[in-house]
Amino acid sequence: MASTDVKVLGSWPSPYVNRVRIALNLKSVNYEFLEEKLGSKSELLLKSNPVHQKMPVMIHGGKPICESLIIVQYIDEAWTDGPSILPSEPYDRAMARFWAAYVEDKWSPTLGGFRNAQGKEAKVAALEEVREGLMLLEDTFAKCGKGKDFFGGDTIGYLDIVLGSFLGWLRATKKLADIKLIDETKTPGLFGWAEKFGSNVAVKDVIPETDKLVELFKMMMTARPKA
Amino acid sequence: MASTDVKVLGSWPSPYVNRVRIALNLKSVNYEFLEEKLGSKSELLLKSNPVHQKMPVMIHGGKPICESLIIVQYIDEAWTDGPSILPSEPYDRAMARFWAAYVEDKWSPTLGGFRNAQGKEAKVAALEEVREGLMLLEDTFAKCGKGKDFFGGDTIGYLDIVLGSFLGWLRATKKLADIKLIDETKTPGLFGWAEKFGSNVAVKDVIPETDKLVELFKMMMTARPKA
Repeated sequence: MASTDVKVLGSWPSPYVNRVRIALNLKSVNYEFLEEKLGSKSELLLKSNPVHQKMPVMIHGGKPICESLIIVQYIDEAWTDGPSILPSEPYDRAMARFWAAYVEDKWSPTLGGFRNAQGKEAKVAALEEVREGLMLLEDTFAKCGKGKDFFGGDTIGYLDIVLGSFLGWLRATKKLADIKLIDETKTPGLFGWAEKFGSNVAVKDVIPETDKLVELFKMMMTARPKA
Repeated sequence: MASTDVKVLGSWPSPYVNRVRIALNLKSVNYEFLEEKLGSKSELLLKSNPVHQKMPVMIHGGKPICESLIIVQYIDEAWTDGPSILPSEPYDRAMARFWAAYVEDKWSPTLGGFRNAQGKEAKVAALEEVREGLMLLEDTFAKCGKGKDFFGGDTIGYLDIVLGSFLGWLRATKKLADIKLIDETKTPGLFGWAEKFGSNVAVKDVIPETDKLVELFKMMMTARPKA
């Protein structure tokens, strides 16, 4: 492991924070995880990301870098001797960025929508939206992964990290609602992908434990105002 | 000029479309501009961007690439013999991406908010928001540009394109509302930058004529339902 002056600021359940940790692990970069307390923001976080005041922040050699997708690309560009995170061909890079933006801006909000939907009808509609997105990603997996283990091919890449960071929450959803969002028959490609991604050495200790997420989710539900 | 099989799908007033055209001009890449009619979407556009059904789309060698920020990065990576659009250092690249995302997700919506605000109070509040963002970008210009002509230094770069694509609408706002958003005294850095960006040979014929935008804006205001 290379010895570097890298700090990651964020909390353990955050998919966005965990993207950064997975990318650093893939590059074998040592880092200090400065854990933010749930529900509050440290002075260092606020000072390091004054524009958005959000985690994750990565501080490298004293310089803060913000926004998970930007940090992951920075990691790929700053540590070029590790395995590549973005594909090498411009068109493949554009596709990885396109689908990463899709996961970020379109699909992940449907996951939150499902988690927070009230009443059976709303739940069913929200679940349908999540599944539609996964069907699209199943297609993308076949196209980008070209029959290999990951969206990135033989190794974990950008889109793997961006989508895979939600794996903990997908597992928690299965446990909480007995709903398999990534399904052996409907999305067999993603099913196999999730197994391989989740058990990868760079990933497995970063994805939060399902029971801890379930507990956190129940706490959040209790704390929120009733509809 | 290199001869290539490049098509750009989009309409003339769109800042997002014009980013792509500026980036191609900077790289001296010939392209065919397939102009979309205002208020409708061509079959080719819908087929090329089935996920978002939005312009711009760039088709290179038969392959469609979507989303303006992704297309501009693709152009930089596909035509490496032209001038670089992204900076060369990883940290500078991350900063350019950070501020480009700020312009895209935070600042440009305030510009739309100001344009559409109804009533004096709402107008004043919306204007204040636009100006706050510009003050932040004035600061960023000093940091990223390091006293040179552009955010990208001596030459037009990523953040120049992303912010500069709004220059036509800023000029139209000045003409319509007699409000200088980029101001000689409040944002002197951006004022000088806008002059140099707008008169650059890769840019000047792409930024829509102010009178045409003013006319379009008046038409849009007439067409929309009354509050």
